[in-house]
Amino acid sequence: MITEETLRGMLKPKNTGWRTNITKVEPNQLITRGYSQEDLIGSVSFPEMVYLLLKGELPSKTHKKMLEAILVSFCDHGTTPPSTQSARLMASAGSPVNVCIAGGIMAFGKNHAGAIESSMKMLQKGVEIQRNYNKSIIEIRDEILNYFNDRNMKIPGFGHRYHKEDPRARKLMEIADDLGCSMEHSKLVMEIQKILYNEKGIKMNVDGANSAILSDLGFNWRIGSGMFIIGRLPGLLAHVNEEITGEEPFRKIFDVGNI
Amino acid sequence: MITEETLRGMLKPKNTGWRTNITKVEPNQLITRGYSQEDLIGSVSFPEMVYLLLKGELPSKTHKKMLEAILVSFCDHGTTPPSTQSARLMASAGSPVNVCIAGGIMAFGKNHAGAIESSMKMLQKGVEIQRNYNKSIIEIRDEILNYFNDRNMKIPGFGHRYHKEDPRARKLMEIADDLGCSMEHSKLVMEIQKILYNEKGIKMNVDGANSAILSDLGFNWRIGSGMFIIGRLPGLLAHVNEEITGEEPFRKIFDVGNI
Amino acid sequence: MITEETLRGMLKPKNTGWRTNITKVEPNQLITRGYSQEDLIGSVSFPEMVYLLLKGELPSKTHKKMLEAILVSFCDHGTTPPSTQSARLMASAGSPVNVCIAGGIMAFGKNHAGAIESSMKMLQKGVEIQRNYNKSIIEIRDEILNYFNDRNMKIPGFGHRYHKEDPRARKLMEIADDLGCSMEHSKLVMEIQKILYNEKGIKMNVDGANSAILSDLGFNWRIGSGMFIIGRLPGLLAHVNEEITGEEPFRKIFDVGNI
Amino acid sequence: MITEETLRGMLKPKNTGWRTNITKVEPNQLITRGYSQEDLIGSVSFPEMVYLLLKGELPSKTHKKMLEAILVSFCDHGTTPPSTQSARLMASAGSPVNVCIAGGIMAFGKNHAGAIESSMKMLQKGVEIQRNYNKSIIEIRDEILNYFNDRNMKIPGFGHRYHKEDPRARKLMEIADDLGCSMEHSKLVMEIQKILYNEKGIKMNVDGANSAILSDLGFNWRIGSGMFIIGRLPGLLAHVNEEITGEEPFRKIFDVGNI
Repeated sequence: MITEETLRGMLKPKNTGWRTNITKVEPNQLITRGYSQEDLIGSVSFPEMVYLLLKGELPSKTHKKMLEAILVSFCDHGTTPPSTQSARLMASAGSPVNVCIAGGIMAFGKNHAGAIESSMKMLQKGVEIQRNYNKSIIEIRDEILNYFNDRNMKIPGFGHRYHKEDPRARKLMEIADDLGCSMEHSKLVMEIQKILYNEKGIKMNVDGANSAILSDLGFNWRIGSGMFIIGRLPGLLAHVNEEITGEEPFRKIFDVGNI
Repeated sequence: MITEETLRGMLKPKNTGWRTNITKVEPNQLITRGYSQEDLIGSVSFPEMVYLLLKGELPSKTHKKMLEAILVSFCDHGTTPPSTQSARLMASAGSPVNVCIAGGIMAFGKNHAGAIESSMKMLQKGVEIQRNYNKSIIEIRDEILNYFNDRNMKIPGFGHRYHKEDPRARKLMEIADDLGCSMEHSKLVMEIQKILYNEKGIKMNVDGANSAILSDLGFNWRIGSGMFIIGRLPGLLAHVNEEITGEEPFRKIFDVGNI
Repeated sequence: MITEETLRGMLKPKNTGWRTNITKVEPNQLITRGYSQEDLIGSVSFPEMVYLLLKGELPSKTHKKMLEAILVSFCDHGTTPPSTQSARLMASAGSPVNVCIAGGIMAFGKNHAGAIESSMKMLQKGVEIQRNYNKSIIEIRDEILNYFNDRNMKIPGFGHRYHKEDPRARKLMEIADDLGCSMEHSKLVMEIQKILYNEKGIKMNVDGANSAILSDLGFNWRIGSGMFIIGRLPGLLAHVNEEITGEEPFRKIFDVGNI
Repeated sequence: MITEETLRGMLKPKNTGWRTNITKVEPNQLITRGYSQEDLIGSVSFPEMVYLLLKGELPSKTHKKMLEAILVSFCDHGTTPPSTQSARLMASAGSPVNVCIAGGIMAFGKNHAGAIESSMKMLQKGVEIQRNYNKSIIEIRDEILNYFNDRNMKIPGFGHRYHKEDPRARKLMEIADDLGCSMEHSKLVMEIQKILYNEKGIKMNVDGANSAILSDLGFNWRIGSGMFIIGRLPGLLAHVNEEITGEEPFRKIFDVGNI
């Protein structure tokens, strides 16, 4: 006969296993962050769903509008990014659509979409210090500028390979102002821009603007590049589709040397 | 001296190179499908942007609402899918967030998210034949059922590993009805369900419902799994984030045999 | 009290779980296909290890030599393949080395490295029919040629985007002859080449040669592209390394239009 | 009429484009690191090809043997690694073989295969300082141990989730000794092991041993994880193949909670 204790020992899992607070799966029912998916479908917008999944609660009306603008702003940058080129190369080579999209996402390395995470980290660290040590935005701005100058590093979120002035950045900062979403992180990034523009003619790019606003919306820097990917995905899909339906398979997109 | 002809020959590109109708990139300007991105940001919703990128034009109000419901319906299915498990395994192993997300997407193989493309193909082919040969929905339904029965194949978009009745499918079909988006593809899928439910107790799943509605919205089957990925991405990101912030790094999620 | 039966039910695993015949992992011991890894390291060559892992036994001396030549033959094709270009694009974007390599592998779509699997399938199916129905190689050759002609499809393993005559194919077939590894699959591919060369001037490529020889070595077509990837990996790594150490990060590898 | 100067400006490439010193591709000819591929196939072993591609020259006999042992030692670790589990999950979901392999590779994050690069970096930095500042191995060992202790960080290349003593590490160090390949990096790693084993009972793992020996062979730390991937690939392929041919498609490998 087996005692209860022995039994409990035998049944004790040897592994952590999967567990999650995101969605509870039961037969014929899916509960996401406390809401039945049946109730969410048709009731909440896509940005609200993004917010709910990541933050565990639905956003306010203005936060929802702001997040929608952010996601739209990441949509596409033509065929210039290595991510789009990778996705199209894979499409041309005959890989399935999901694989081409994954390939595009894998090209978001530290030199490409990495800036948004570094920028969020920089701004969030700055505002944290400002709050904890009762410093002014101007003091923090100078500490940041010195830090990067001393290390001869570019400040993330500023400058663009193709644009002197990134048209998306200005528009996003305007919307943040109009919706009352501009808080300390936005103020800090604007102060940094003032100096960089005066001294070197460099302006904020779409990553810089969005990293400030996402921080003001309370998102942790860890989800920065993920948020960018959500916004860019429809663009990647459109390019993969265009390559498959509009170009010769396995075309020589670039030839090399004497061949 | 170089003649114009020689010159033209010399300048003629040896490769096709990149070209796109999606976004025109010019210094300080981004024109997507004819619209300045500055004008789109803050004006269009995310589903409208998806529609614009993929179809080249903005959707009607009802199409926009329908697409929003579809994207929301794909959001998450807890830790049960191999895609979510792959993404979390990579997160636990210390891969960057974009790589974990890409890994999740790569697990959408033909047995996993592949159903949505197969289902769209089946319904679009069916409706095409119906139109061209002046057949009834019932005739097409029977041809489809026979085709799959003869080959001993499961009909894509029906049945679910975890649900007898997928709660998302019913809700989506209701919304499509309410918005007046139900057309031939939805009728066809409902007729297939009648038979499968009577004979085997099998109901449509979220992929079956969405494949019918996306087809009624005029989307080609090729973008089916891409649309699913857009909708599922926020869920994947939430899981990756939960793994990174809530679990031990490189934990033994499942142990194996005697170890 | 709990009866034995109840208990058995409770303990019955709800999942299949992991299980494998490849390597048995025990504390301080690793047994691969029956051999202690300690004994294999330093004793077997890399191709022997490949053979052992995939076939469950060590190869003969000639099979080992043949497999070594095959793996070496896949090594590199400069910067022309989309796989190499994808890997280098990701390296330039600052992705980690393992991600760049994975990205290269993901570009081995059905138009790129897919040929080797299709070719192995074709030859293995052919030889199977030949054996089962007591047909001649010539009859099978004609059936294959007709099959592809009727469908207006290219025969996999023949022709090359860059070479009229692939120098690797000829060398591989010679080695197979010298080592006595040429069996029915090699004979069949040579017969196909005779016709294609006479009629259209098309010759076998590296994939065609290797698919015949791998089939003669008894490998199933399913591992065809995997074998190619093993051979190509050092080349992909060399390119990723060259991009990281020899080129500017995030360079504009190709510019686009007027930008 | 167009002047020569204008013309030169027009013809000046706007991009760097592809260029490589690895393989020169010409019609019907492939020259890798100065050798015709026709001559390499059948003449050099796979490890020699790896060495040639990465270092630009063929290895000595002992270096070849050492590299072969290293590649073999990475072969497989059953179903315990997240990489193998990811690859099998994707195979079960119906993704193509190349995608499953890529997925496995993407799980080699900083907590998984990352150790080999960190360990090579640590040892190479240590030996560099030793040489430049005329220090002893013991002094360097202590500096390293203090550095990691002060930061409360684990020393890369030591300890294993499943083995108290990694059987591969001991064997590899023996072979390196026998072949005369043990140089400063191996001495340094052995000295570190002495202290760690005496103080905490921790021994070197396969990554620690290989990172020392690869460093002694003159490989830069950047190619560490790439080398591991070359060695592990046949194992990943064997697992993917086993999953596809031996298990039910889309099986519930692990179930979750009450479902």
